[in-house]
This record gives sequence, C-alpha cells and structure tokens, in this order.
Amino acid sequence: MPDLHTFWRDLHLIRTTNPLVLNITNYVVTNTTANALLALGASPIMSFAKEEVEELVGLSSSLVVNVGTLNKPDIDVMAKAWTAANKKGIPVVLDPVGAGASRLRIETPLTLLSRYRPTIIRGNASEIMTLAGEAGEAKGVDSTRSTDSAVIGAKALAQVHGCVVCASGAEDVVTDGTDVYRIYGGHELMPFVTGLGCTATAICAAFAAVNKDYLEATVHGMAAISMAGSMAADKADGPGTLQLHLYDAFYSMDKVDAKRLFNVNSI
Amino acid sequence: MPDLHTFWRDLHLIRTTNPLVLNITNYVVTNTTANALLALGASPIMSFAKEEVEELVGLSSSLVVNVGTLNKPDIDVMAKAWTAANKKGIPVVLDPVGAGASRLRIETPLTLLSRYRPTIIRGNASEIMTLAGEAGEAKGVDSTRSTDSAVIGAKALAQVHGCVVCASGAEDVVTDGTDVYRIYGGHELMPFVTGLGCTATAICAAFAAVNKDYLEATVHGMAAISMAGSMAADKADGPGTLQLHLYDAFYSMDKVDAKRLFNVNSI
Amino acid sequence: MPDLHTFWRDLHLIRTTNPLVLNITNYVVTNTTANALLALGASPIMSFAKEEVEELVGLSSSLVVNVGTLNKPDIDVMAKAWTAANKKGIPVVLDPVGAGASRLRIETPLTLLSRYRPTIIRGNASEIMTLAGEAGEAKGVDSTRSTDSAVIGAKALAQVHGCVVCASGAEDVVTDGTDVYRIYGGHELMPFVTGLGCTATAICAAFAAVNKDYLEATVHGMAAISMAGSMAADKADGPGTLQLHLYDAFYSMDKVDAKRLFNVNSI
Repeated sequence: MPDLHTFWRDLHLIRTTNPLVLNITNYVVTNTTANALLALGASPIMSFAKEEVEELVGLSSSLVVNVGTLNKPDIDVMAKAWTAANKKGIPVVLDPVGAGASRLRIETPLTLLSRYRPTIIRGNASEIMTLAGEAGEAKGVDSTRSTDSAVIGAKALAQVHGCVVCASGAEDVVTDGTDVYRIYGGHELMPFVTGLGCTATAICAAFAAVNKDYLEATVHGMAAISMAGSMAADKADGPGTLQLHLYDAFYSMDKVDAKRLFNVNSI
Repeated sequence: MPDLHTFWRDLHLIRTTNPLVLNITNYVVTNTTANALLALGASPIMSFAKEEVEELVGLSSSLVVNVGTLNKPDIDVMAKAWTAANKKGIPVVLDPVGAGASRLRIETPLTLLSRYRPTIIRGNASEIMTLAGEAGEAKGVDSTRSTDSAVIGAKALAQVHGCVVCASGAEDVVTDGTDVYRIYGGHELMPFVTGLGCTATAICAAFAAVNKDYLEATVHGMAAISMAGSMAADKADGPGTLQLHLYDAFYSMDKVDAKRLFNVNSI
Repeated sequence: MPDLHTFWRDLHLIRTTNPLVLNITNYVVTNTTANALLALGASPIMSFAKEEVEELVGLSSSLVVNVGTLNKPDIDVMAKAWTAANKKGIPVVLDPVGAGASRLRIETPLTLLSRYRPTIIRGNASEIMTLAGEAGEAKGVDSTRSTDSAVIGAKALAQVHGCVVCASGAEDVVTDGTDVYRIYGGHELMPFVTGLGCTATAICAAFAAVNKDYLEATVHGMAAISMAGSMAADKADGPGTLQLHLYDAFYSMDKVDAKRLFNVNSI
C-alpha cells in the first residue's frame, strides 16, 4: 500500500540508481519531460528511430509511449518499442494525449492497446473516459468529467486491460480496477503550463522503473508531481516561473517536504 | 478602432472562453508558443498529422501556419488545414519565418498564399518586405528594413492578399492595406529570446479567434506581447528569465497594467 | 594559445558580428540551443529540410551536426549540409549524442566522419571514447570514463580525423591531437539540465565562426559554458532555474566575470 514510507523509498531508489526511461513522446514536451526526469534523478532518453528503438529498450528500465503529436513513422516506432518492452518485461506507460479530439488520437491508442500490454495508462479525466467509453463501459459520458465519472471510467479501463489507470485532474484518481487511490495537492496554475500531464506520465514511468508494484508506483508518481507543483507554486509568480521551480522541486524535494505534502487516500 | 477598451474586452473574452488555437508550427517553438497561449487564456493544440488536421480545424477557432522548420509532409498538413479553415471560415495566421533565407522559405508561403486566403500575415520587417517584394511592390528593398519601408511593404502585401499584415520590430506596424497602426513597447531583450515572433503570431491567432475585426485583433495581439514584454523585462536579469516572466505577464496582466502599457497610434 | 585575452576578444566578436550558426540538431534541444546562441550574441538558424540546407550553409559561418534524435531524412540533411560546409570551408562541429547507446548512434557519426571532414567533435567522455575505440585506439575502455582515459581517447580521435576534439565532463578536455587543454568550472547541477552538452557544442560552433584557430575556439566555447554555468549556479535554486540563468549569464557576462572565472590549463 502506497504511503509516505514507500514513496520516499522509491524516490531514493530513483536518485541512487538513475533508471533509464525511454521516451517516444510528442514534439512539444521532449525537452520538458527530459528535464523533469533528470531533476527527479532518472536518466531520460528520447528516440524517434525504428532502427535503434529495440536496442534502447534493451538498456531501459521503463518505456513511455505518448501520442501527443502523431505521425505514421512515430506510430511504427511506438509499436516496435512496445513489442520489445513487453518481451523484456519492463513497464510501459501510455499517455493518450488528446484522445477524443480526433479519430487518429482515439484509434492509435486503441490499436496499440489491442496489440500490446500496457502497464499504466495516464490521461486526464476526459481522455481516460474516452478510452473507457470505447471499451464499452462509459460511452458518451466523457463530457461530464466529474471525479466520480472518472473513477468509473478508470476502473473500467483498468479491468479491460489488466493495468493501472490514472485519471488526473484537480484530484488524481489511480486504480488497478479494484483498489482506488486519490492524490490531492498540486496547484491551480499547473493547467496553464503545457505538457505537465505528459510530465506526470514520464514521472510515473520513473517510479515504475524501480517498483514492480505498479499501482503503488503510479500513486508515487502522481504524488511526486502534486507535491512538486505545490512546492513550485510557493515560489512562482505565474505559469512561466512555475515550470522552472517545478524542476527545482523534483530535484530538491526532501523528507520534510514529503512529510508535509504527501496526501494520498484510499477510497 | 482598437483601443484600451477593445483590447481589454478581447483579453477578457480569451480568458473566459478559452478558444482552441490549432498550430502547425516549427519544431523550435512548439513548447514555447503553447505555453504563451495557455498563459494568455487560450487553448493550444499542436499537430503535424494530415490524418487528423481537418477534424482539428473543425474544433478550432483559429489556425496558425508557421513555416519555421519546413519539410514536405508538414507542408501537406498546412495545405490541408488551411483548406479546411478557409471552408469553415476561421481566421488563418501565417508566419513566413525566414522568408528570404532560402527559396523554400519564400516559395512555400507564396505558394500557400496563391492557393488559400490568409487572414493575417505576421513577420519581421525583412520577412514582410521579402514577401511584398515578390508581390511586385518593394522588390530588392528588404535590406533597408526601416520602419517606413516596412509600412510600404506591409501595405502592399495587405492589398495583394486582402488581409491584415503585421511587420514587427522595435515598433510594430499593423495594416489592412488602408489603415495603419503602430504599436510601441516591448523591450530590447526580446530579440535575444528565440521564437518570440512566433509567439506574437500565435497570440494574434488567439485574439483573432474572439474578434472578427481582424485589424483590431492583430493590433490587440501585438499590443499584448509588447505589454507582456515590458512587464517581463522589469523582473528579468536577461533573456532566459525574460521568457518565463513573459508567460507570467500574459497570465497576470490586469487592467492597471493595460492602462499603463497600452501604446497604440493610428498613423 | 587560448587565454583570457583571446577569449574576451572572440566573445566580443560574436556579440558585434552576430555570426549565423546553422544547426541540424535533435528535437529535444532546438529551442534551448537557439536561446543559448542568441544570448551569447550569435544568430541561430535551425533546419531539417534538404531543399534549403545548401543555401543556408551559404549564409552561415559555422554548422552544427547533432545526432541526438536521428531519423533517415535528417541524416540525409546532415550529409548534404556537411558536404556544402566542407566545400565552402566553414567549420563543422559534430555532437555524437548517445554514441554507444545504439548501433545507429555509433554508425551514423562514423559514416559521416568517413565521408566528411569535421572541424570539432564534442561529446561527453563516454561518447568520445566510443568513437575513439572504433578508430582503433581505446576499444573497450569506455566504461572507465576517467579523465585520463578521456585524454587518450580524445587525442586518438583528433589524430585520426585531423580535428579538434572535446571530451566534456566535470573537467573538460580539449585537444588537437598534440596540445591538450583542461577547462575547469561549471557546476554539479549542470548534468541535471537536459541538453547542456548540445548547448556546449553550439557555443563552440559560435566561437569557431569567429576564430579559425579551432583549438583556441573550442577552448573558448567550453570556457564560456563553464563560466556561465558557475554564474548561473550562484542564482539558481535547482536545475530548472539554472537553465534560465545560464542564458542570462551568456548575455551579461562581462570582463570582471571573465577574469574571475576563466580557468584553463595547458597540460
């Protein structure tokens, strides 16, 4: 069960073992997610090349597949990397960015999910409910986006794929289809920074790289970004300075910060 | 006629209606222009996929076409998106980044302009005069780059394409081919931050999304970045910190700031 | 011989002549290296288009080839640009990002190096030793990564290619295969910011654009980033704020800073 103790243990593991996290991600967040992973203590590598992606999976401890700026060659790279990751047995974290905004952004994650095993799916409530709706449980409800609807959608999606699902928002919901956790914290400025959802996904991949209890790892990852967001907001004048202080917070977060800000409830 | 009142009305509209701005833009500024749009109150989406771009236009209130890092597939995406935008009737803002530096960077915007209707063209004085020169009015003068030359080039280009043109610089010139406005402000540090011209283009697209008087919208957009630049410079130690304070300024700009810094003259 | 005087002379030249530096670089650092070059006083241009790259070389004073996010079309662009740069006689700086992580990341720089003449190769110690090992001198030693091994690898690589090699790290080593310089400074936070190695490469290209003594130019470039890193660390709370203060430092670095922080030894 995730708690302050397991969180701190895993953050310490990331900082001391620097796990390699392979990111096949969108062009908007390559720089920012790499910086977040480095600041946390992980070692990011970004690739868009089918020629090397299997080798890079061989070196990596987890894989991020983020569909935020899709094109055909990148989808092939994702498929190849995901196949290799499933074969090697490392966790794969899917971020279905913009699922619902276009068919391509729904069909691509659904096709990938039909072929490969996800470990964690992290999206905002709308994205999770779109994917869940397609899975037959919550169709048509993605406009409500209440936390309760997100819980239903996230549980349905987790059950269909046998994975952990996080629906993030003002409160984050994390579930393996049975147990459900809520993570509180963060700050209202965070939605005004582009790609912080993608950053959360990458951070979850770093925690999954050091903890095979993936429900716990996802709760830790979401707690880490909530806590870092709260710490950053104390120093920021707006969304611009927030982003930089967020990296500083990932880097400097200590036991006192963790004790003060770790806020997770089982529901 | 653009004034403090119309500016504030439109900024308020952006902040309360969060218009979706679709960006087909260059790889250098995807992150920074998304952050600027979010901080202002708009909702950015970035895409490079021909499979989805028509659907995304269907959801969007304006379109940015920025040719800063061209390649063949992206040009096709631009063409498809622009066609859809003209059909739907939403404004299209073209940024001819580097027009003059290579044939590709002149021919691509000229070809697009010969096929599709622009709403606003925003470039620096040199880029605008290069495009205007090709249109037969100011050929060969792009090396002078004086504000007076920029006015002539911008008016010519606006007349040829029946659109609004902004030639930005230490002072910005905005014209619909008849009326001309100058926007003052900004800060001498701004040219030392990459992509602030691209940011200005995206900000104009946000204002055009909420105001069908596109001359007014463009003046508002250029005023917004000039004002934000002045506010940011007060807090910055250099171009690095300036960029982050710029986002903070977009986010926090209030009526007092606007009253103090709005500086637009009709000429 | 590089010293405080030659460093300051070249920095002044960059600030007053604003040399155009063409970057064919990876998708993670397009924005950050452009900002670093602008802050230093150079004029960056980024391109990924084979249609224009020869023309852009024609305008440029130096070329960066960075293999950090390879794909087939970009490799063709690199080849075309490098051919044009050799023909024109402008310096070419190669950054073999991740050499050793995959065959693609070793074979691509080695293939390019077999066909085109590099002026400077800058990588971290591991990357340099991987390339040097392939050249037959230090095979299999890339796991040690000590400064002494880096010196041996860098000298071997410089001799094989008749170029300047920089192996960067806590201390940087710069050699033309005969003379060796060490640059001290920087800060332990720097490895926690993504792409500062790529930034160092771009900065070296700016110095090479104004000084045909490329050994001296490379020492100047590495000294500049070490000094800026030290200045930035004085103001930063972590790796996030460090990156922005780094640009501020490139912009504001004056003679007093230079005198205090320039720390280069011939060995």
